[in-house]
Amino acid sequence: MTLISPVQPFLLATASPENAPIVLSGVLLSLVIVYLASKVGGEISKALDFPPVLGELISGVLVGASALHLLVFPESGAHASDSLLMPVLQWVGGLTPEGVTEVFESQSEIISLLAELGVIILLFEIGLESDLRELQKVGSQAAIVACVGVAAPFAAGTAGLMLLFHVPAIPAIFAGAALTATSIGITSKVLSELGQLKSREGQIIVGAAVIDDVLGIIVLAVVASLAKTGEVDVMNVIYLIVSATGFLLGAILFGKFFNNAFVAIADKLQTRGKLVIPALSFAFLMAFFANAIHLEAILGAFAAGLVLDETDRRKELDGQIIPIADILVPIFFVTVGAKVDLGVLNPAIPENREGLAIAAFLIVVAIIGKVITGWSVFGQTGINRLAIGVGMIPRGEVGLVFAGIGSASGVLSKPLEAAIIAMVILTTFLAPPFLRLAFGEPSELAEQPALETEPQTLP
Amino acid sequence: MTLISPVQPFLLATASPENAPIVLSGVLLSLVIVYLASKVGGEISKALDFPPVLGELISGVLVGASALHLLVFPESGAHASDSLLMPVLQWVGGLTPEGVTEVFESQSEIISLLAELGVIILLFEIGLESDLRELQKVGSQAAIVACVGVAAPFAAGTAGLMLLFHVPAIPAIFAGAALTATSIGITSKVLSELGQLKSREGQIIVGAAVIDDVLGIIVLAVVASLAKTGEVDVMNVIYLIVSATGFLLGAILFGKFFNNAFVAIADKLQTRGKLVIPALSFAFLMAFFANAIHLEAILGAFAAGLVLDETDRRKELDGQIIPIADILVPIFFVTVGAKVDLGVLNPAIPENREGLAIAAFLIVVAIIGKVITGWSVFGQTGINRLAIGVGMIPRGEVGLVFAGIGSASGVLSKPLEAAIIAMVILTTFLAPPFLRLAFGEPSELAEQPALETEPQTLP
Repeated sequence: MTLISPVQPFLLATASPENAPIVLSGVLLSLVIVYLASKVGGEISKALDFPPVLGELISGVLVGASALHLLVFPESGAHASDSLLMPVLQWVGGLTPEGVTEVFESQSEIISLLAELGVIILLFEIGLESDLRELQKVGSQAAIVACVGVAAPFAAGTAGLMLLFHVPAIPAIFAGAALTATSIGITSKVLSELGQLKSREGQIIVGAAVIDDVLGIIVLAVVASLAKTGEVDVMNVIYLIVSATGFLLGAILFGKFFNNAFVAIADKLQTRGKLVIPALSFAFLMAFFANAIHLEAILGAFAAGLVLDETDRRKELDGQIIPIADILVPIFFVTVGAKVDLGVLNPAIPENREGLAIAAFLIVVAIIGKVITGWSVFGQTGINRLAIGVGMIPRGEVGLVFAGIGSASGVLSKPLEAAIIAMVILTTFLAPPFLRLAFGEPSELAEQPALETEPQTLP
Repeated sequence: MTLISPVQPFLLATASPENAPIVLSGVLLSLVIVYLASKVGGEISKALDFPPVLGELISGVLVGASALHLLVFPESGAHASDSLLMPVLQWVGGLTPEGVTEVFESQSEIISLLAELGVIILLFEIGLESDLRELQKVGSQAAIVACVGVAAPFAAGTAGLMLLFHVPAIPAIFAGAALTATSIGITSKVLSELGQLKSREGQIIVGAAVIDDVLGIIVLAVVASLAKTGEVDVMNVIYLIVSATGFLLGAILFGKFFNNAFVAIADKLQTRGKLVIPALSFAFLMAFFANAIHLEAILGAFAAGLVLDETDRRKELDGQIIPIADILVPIFFVTVGAKVDLGVLNPAIPENREGLAIAAFLIVVAIIGKVITGWSVFGQTGINRLAIGVGMIPRGEVGLVFAGIGSASGVLSKPLEAAIIAMVILTTFLAPPFLRLAFGEPSELAEQPALETEPQTLP
């Protein structure tokens, strides 16, 4: 420990103690803005029959660097003077100019970290909702659709960005990877509204979307790790694919034993939080382990969710994770939107043409790369292949996870990041009407609400 | 905005972008330690028939600056080299020595802020549980007990510290204030175990403890604000008492109108988190307002809880706040313990004698100042006055709120802070057996579980 120099501990320091209450004020005010934005956006989106996450993202764009500047972040190049919150805090706290910069940086770092905890909880919840036994049932059809739906947009996106737009390898691979993951939430929501959740097409779509999520998270872990080293080394890629897959499979296998231990512990505990605290400790520990072996924290949280999904206490746990996710996940969605400056895609400015062209290219690849998956289904006559392909289009929250992590890693250029966000917004926006068209009118009323359902209320 | 200088934005910066994943790792690992400590301590305490919060606090002391050094904070004078987590993170992340300091400071700031959100949620929950209509019923008896129980230890504690130990006015007032608030959770828990919750004594104790909480929070808001200015100015004290009382009364009056608006909004919302997000937005906004008028954030959160307590959706909201409190509140209890170095009370070291004498003095005042309240009850013959007085002894979570905020404000010397923690631990530890003695054996089995009950499980 003698390596650690005690020099300058307060020069590099986060906000000075006297500014700590102002940092708290800033965080509270930022959270209120996040919550208002997420609810206003989510509700409007829902009322217009779009997925709530779309509205949360667009609200985030509106309160963020693109428009209102209520929520801006140093990572996207903003200074304290760009934030409209800072004059309020300066007035409340009587801050010096240096104090304002300190408070801005500390507050931004804390909101970013809360957003990271939000995406960890989101992936934990997705893991909890992914039923491995269900997956085995849908079987090979869904697996093929998923693999084609990951490989086609990834290959076409990466190659196109490198060859047509001369984007360097790492950001091209990252953007290609952001095209891979279908949003299971949005898809299963629309399918249930159309009464198609239990149809042959619906079963294949949902199964493929789940496998797709798993593949996407592995791809993300590999790609994000490449971004850290900045090089595409074949041995490293192989190591990462093996370690990410091994981590997930290891967690599932180990889970069979851990499950019983978890239930036994939760049954023995007598104090408050006896279920949720062991569950979150496990999720955070797995997230830490994933981070420690240079994968993404969310891979660990997802694995923890998959493991705990198999226990008898799953339903009860789910009910307790829901309010926690409800307060943390919107921080993630709104800040992903807020960190992006969609101004770099403003068509009125000539220099933006390339960014716009990239965005248009990504959107086309994102749609075509998934629509073709319908034709990879074999041995099924009279199946609605178009509907299957269209059902795989929406990227939603998983695409946002890619954009958020890409942005945090600093590997994406601003136009590329904005193009990914535009791709996520458009595919999410187009999928529900396209899916309704592909299926024709609703065959019956909603059968079974899925991931986007309301929290269960207490008796 | 020209006031804000863009100079040195990265000199004062929080952790550099390349260290952000390590900060996340550090936060995840710290949270796992907090959760393990809180559960191990809470469960052992519960098994020994003490309140779980006592165990969480003692566990915090064990993992913190006093013993294991797994969780240490710059506010209490620790450097990165004092933390046993840092070598782990350094090994995981390959950090430079400066990187270690950065990560340590950022991580500590984030955990401290999560603890502050924890105490905000705790006070919001206490507000939600405090029934104003119940309070009006217990009436004047409870009010007198509460006032005596606040005034006696406050006056005796402050005067004693100043006259006997020559402590300066501000820290003496702060420590005196920390003696005021009875823990309603611990008291009502023990009363319900003894089957005395509905007895005359039990009703007076619980009523007085609730009023006591409200008075204590007002006292805290006033005292913490004094600590910020560092001066005891009579006009300022009057302003603070008026503004804190006015804030609470204003919130309650305004609440009558806001309640209906809140229920109407929550009824209209269709997306996830439709109840918990508006509720927390309100709580955070009130906390921000309280902070903005130089009171404490927790006063705003408490007021928000009192307001929403009156709505029809209270039960449902309560059920959703519980898991959120379960994951955030332990961060507060454990870090309060972790930040204190009880080593300054080690009796083997001669210089510690004064700190020990202060601790002993505070404990005596804390007990006697509450026991005498039983004799302030009037017009009741045959009432167990000793039991009422003893029932007011435990300080528990509210005493910890004082210690935590005093520590954050930097006004308390280390021995004084350690003495307050020792007072909280001992009064909480002694109250249950003393109360059993004062009442004699349990008259019947537990009637009705109160604040410390388990989270309700979903159907």
